[in-house]
Amino acid sequence: MTVYSARLARLIEALRRLPGVGPKSAQRMAFHLLERDREGMEFLRAALEDARTGVTRCATCRMFCEEEGCRYCTGSRTATGQVCVVEGPADLMAIEYHTSYRGRYFVLMGRLSPLDGLGPEELGLDVLTRQLDGGSVKELIIATNPTVEGEATAYYLAELARSRGIKVTRIAHGVPMGGELEYVDGGTLTHALTGRQPV
Amino acid sequence: MTVYSARLARLIEALRRLPGVGPKSAQRMAFHLLERDREGMEFLRAALEDARTGVTRCATCRMFCEEEGCRYCTGSRTATGQVCVVEGPADLMAIEYHTSYRGRYFVLMGRLSPLDGLGPEELGLDVLTRQLDGGSVKELIIATNPTVEGEATAYYLAELARSRGIKVTRIAHGVPMGGELEYVDGGTLTHALTGRQPV
Repeated sequence: MTVYSARLARLIEALRRLPGVGPKSAQRMAFHLLERDREGMEFLRAALEDARTGVTRCATCRMFCEEEGCRYCTGSRTATGQVCVVEGPADLMAIEYHTSYRGRYFVLMGRLSPLDGLGPEELGLDVLTRQLDGGSVKELIIATNPTVEGEATAYYLAELARSRGIKVTRIAHGVPMGGELEYVDGGTLTHALTGRQPV
Repeated sequence: MTVYSARLARLIEALRRLPGVGPKSAQRMAFHLLERDREGMEFLRAALEDARTGVTRCATCRMFCEEEGCRYCTGSRTATGQVCVVEGPADLMAIEYHTSYRGRYFVLMGRLSPLDGLGPEELGLDVLTRQLDGGSVKELIIATNPTVEGEATAYYLAELARSRGIKVTRIAHGVPMGGELEYVDGGTLTHALTGRQPV
């Protein structure tokens, strides 16, 4: 039984497609827009249209980019010789926002997961391989997530670079800053101990 | 410091205007749409446009309605002689969805709150008064929320109808179904006891 009128039902259905939005939230958003923010409605509509038509993928790093060119593939970034491989755009954003790293990136848009049909091709590893063969990459920094699939992807990437004589590094995994040993899980602690470094 | 490109930043800003969406959620939504649901993006854009141009307010009940007429002001509903007053569209939806009530509604789009500049005019009580004077309303059911302002609004509405000799009822407030007396708050329990009914 639908209690909504046609356009309202369609708006709620469309909002429900956003991640983390259930039926109640979608209804609340729709009513909020209709009742109190008609201007925001138009703003969102225009932003969606702009993004849909104007945001594409960079052929080099696979991050989203716009017509004026990719902001993560500039000459100064390429000159560092560093390429940081991440699983998704949000990972790139996190590194870019919180750290002073200003080298290039390569966004996999996923992780190796044969069961889900995600092989090296889907992750654009042919593109990355050509870049490694090109000779400008001096260091491959692997920043995939420390999950089973992320680790498998990291291993694959490391082999790819090592076989070409390129330096490979992996971001450190261990006790988070501000964390207490007492409450850290066993896997992380084991990782922290085996990965200990001279001071 | 903005780390996003222009269109992406605008999309994230627009999504943040939705209620309950913070910066992280907005980024996640934007990336989700760009990465995995370009079709959903177009769907949402079209739904927003449709709703913005096609959804208006019903002049009789103040609920959202579309050009084909208000589904809550039909002849059969008017014939019941009942009008249920609610604070917002979500309240109307809740009653419509969960109960068998099929009379008319009147949506205040707020509650009496002089400090916020919400007086009888803003809530459309002049419209409601004309309907009460019209003679077709036999019962006014008050379903405002049991908050201080909701109660004040209920009192005002009750006076409005009573002075015209129209029957006024208030939806029952008491122990919720499935609730246990032991854990119910004092105010609700007091209300439940004073509002006891013969069985």
